[in-house]
Amino acid sequence: MSIDNTVATDREHAVTAEVLASFDKTPDPRLRDVMGSLVRHLHAFARDIRLTPPEWEAAIEFLTRAGHITDDRRQEFILLSDVLGLSMLTVAINEAAAPGATESTVFGPFFVDDAPEIPLGGDIARGAPGCACYVSGRVRSVGGEPIVGARIEVWEADADGFYDVQYADGRSAGRGWLRSGADGGYRFWSVLPAPYPIPHDGPVGDLLTATARGPMRPAHLHFMVTAPDFRPLITHIFLADDPYLDCDAVFGVKENLVVEAVHHTDTPAPDGSHPQGGWTSITFDLVLAQADGH
Amino acid sequence: MSIDNTVATDREHAVTAEVLASFDKTPDPRLRDVMGSLVRHLHAFARDIRLTPPEWEAAIEFLTRAGHITDDRRQEFILLSDVLGLSMLTVAINEAAAPGATESTVFGPFFVDDAPEIPLGGDIARGAPGCACYVSGRVRSVGGEPIVGARIEVWEADADGFYDVQYADGRSAGRGWLRSGADGGYRFWSVLPAPYPIPHDGPVGDLLTATARGPMRPAHLHFMVTAPDFRPLITHIFLADDPYLDCDAVFGVKENLVVEAVHHTDTPAPDGSHPQGGWTSITFDLVLAQADGH
Repeated sequence: MSIDNTVATDREHAVTAEVLASFDKTPDPRLRDVMGSLVRHLHAFARDIRLTPPEWEAAIEFLTRAGHITDDRRQEFILLSDVLGLSMLTVAINEAAAPGATESTVFGPFFVDDAPEIPLGGDIARGAPGCACYVSGRVRSVGGEPIVGARIEVWEADADGFYDVQYADGRSAGRGWLRSGADGGYRFWSVLPAPYPIPHDGPVGDLLTATARGPMRPAHLHFMVTAPDFRPLITHIFLADDPYLDCDAVFGVKENLVVEAVHHTDTPAPDGSHPQGGWTSITFDLVLAQADGH
Repeated sequence: MSIDNTVATDREHAVTAEVLASFDKTPDPRLRDVMGSLVRHLHAFARDIRLTPPEWEAAIEFLTRAGHITDDRRQEFILLSDVLGLSMLTVAINEAAAPGATESTVFGPFFVDDAPEIPLGGDIARGAPGCACYVSGRVRSVGGEPIVGARIEVWEADADGFYDVQYADGRSAGRGWLRSGADGGYRFWSVLPAPYPIPHDGPVGDLLTATARGPMRPAHLHFMVTAPDFRPLITHIFLADDPYLDCDAVFGVKENLVVEAVHHTDTPAPDGSHPQGGWTSITFDLVLAQADGH
C-alpha cells in the first residue's frame, strides 16, 4: 500500500488530540486525569500494534461475552483483570511500604459479603469437603502490639477446588468471619484448600488457551482483615510445596505468604478434638500496617 | 505515608515483567505482540494514575453494566470504543492513503446484516418517519472509472433520531442495500436524517455526563460499499449547517463527508414523483480505493 507515513501519523494524532480535548471540561480533576491517561495509553496501544478492524471486532466480541457470562456468582471482568496482572499491579501500587506488615495479594472474584459470623475456634468450612485444617495466629501491629477485635473474613475453595458460589445448590460453605480475641489471637477450623483452575469456560479461559497459559491457582486461603486505625489487609496464605506456586494464573503469590501446613494423625487438635482422618495445622500471624502507613 | 518510591517502583515493574513473561509461549506471534503491548500500556496507565482500589472496582462495575445492557439491539462496548475515539483511531490506522478516495468514518453500533435489497431508485426509508430525501451519485474509482454492481448498504436514523433497532415494535426501516447501475450510478429514496443522542441511559451515558460531554451526533447517513478489487468503504455523509458537526460524540466528522442537502418544494423529483411536503436531494459520489491501496 502507498501509505504516506507522515500523513497517517498526523491523522492518527489528530484523532487522539480531539478526544483528549473532549475531556477538558470534566468537572472532577481526578476523573479528567484518569480519562486523559486512559485515552493516551489506549490510543498508543492501538497505534503501536496497528489495530485492524477484525481485531477491534474481536475485542468488542470478547468484552460482550465477558459481560454476558458475568452474573451474581461469576465475575469475568475481575478474572480478566487478574490474568492481565492489573489486579496485582493495583495491589502493588496501593500497598503501604510498611516493613514487617503482612503483604497483600489479589481480592479475587469469590468474596461474598454475607458470610456468617463464627466464634473464635469455630468452623468456617461448614460442610465444605476436605481435610480438617486448624488455622491460628495473632493479629498484631508491625510493632508487635496485639490488635483486639479485628474483623477477619476468611474464604476458601474446598478440596475439589470449588468455592460455594460454584456449587449447584447455592449453599454457603467455606467462608465466615470472626473477631480476634483479647490477646489478638485468632483460630478457626477450615479445610485444607486445593489448587484449582480459575473458571475457564468463558472468554478469559479462551484467552489463556490461545496464549498457552494454564488456568491453575496454587491452593490458598483468603483473608480480609480490618481494624480501626489500621489499613485493611487483603491477602492469601499459600501452601509450601504447591506445584503451582511459580505459575499462578493471576500472579498472586508472594514468598512471605507461603506457609507450611503441618499434618497430624495421632495427636489431638488444640481444642481436644480428634478429626477423623487426621488434621492439618497452619500458623500465620496477620500483621497490619497502621492507617498512616507505618 | 512512608512509601519508599524505589521499592514501590521495583515492585510494580516486577509485576509487569512477570505478566509479560506469561505470554512468552503464545503460539501466534501476532497475538503475542498484541497481548504484550496491551499489558505494557494497561500497566503504564495504572501506574501513571496510581489506580486506587475503589477506582479499579468502579471500572469492573462499569464494564459489568456495559455487558449487561448489551444485547442483540444495543452494543454498549461499541459505544464505549466510539466515545473514547478508539473507533475513529482504528479507522485512521487502517485507512489507505489514496488521495481522492472517499474517506472512512465509524461503523457505529446500528448496522444489521439482514437489511432488504431495494432496486435502484427504490426507498430505503420503508416507513421511517421524516422528509423525503433523494440520494444519488456515482460509485467510481479514484481514476474516475465507474464501478458497476457495487453493493451499497445504507442505514440511517429517522427524523426523530431513532434507528429501527430502537423501535419498540421491532420492525425494519431506514435501511436497505442496492447495487450501482451500469454507469456506476446509484439513487434511492430515504428520509432526511436528524441529529440524535447516542443511547445514553447506560454506563457510557453516565461517563459522558460525568465528563460534561454531550451525547449528540450530527445527522448522517451510513454507507458501506463493497466491490471486487476495491477496498470496502465504511463511511457517513453529514449535512452542512448541522449544529453538532463540531462536537460529534464519536468524533466521526470529516470535512470531505459534509454535503449540502437541497430542499425542493415545487419541482418534481427526478423520478417524476411529487412527495407531499416537498423533498430534499443529496448528491454524493462514492469513490473507492483499489484493494492494493491506490
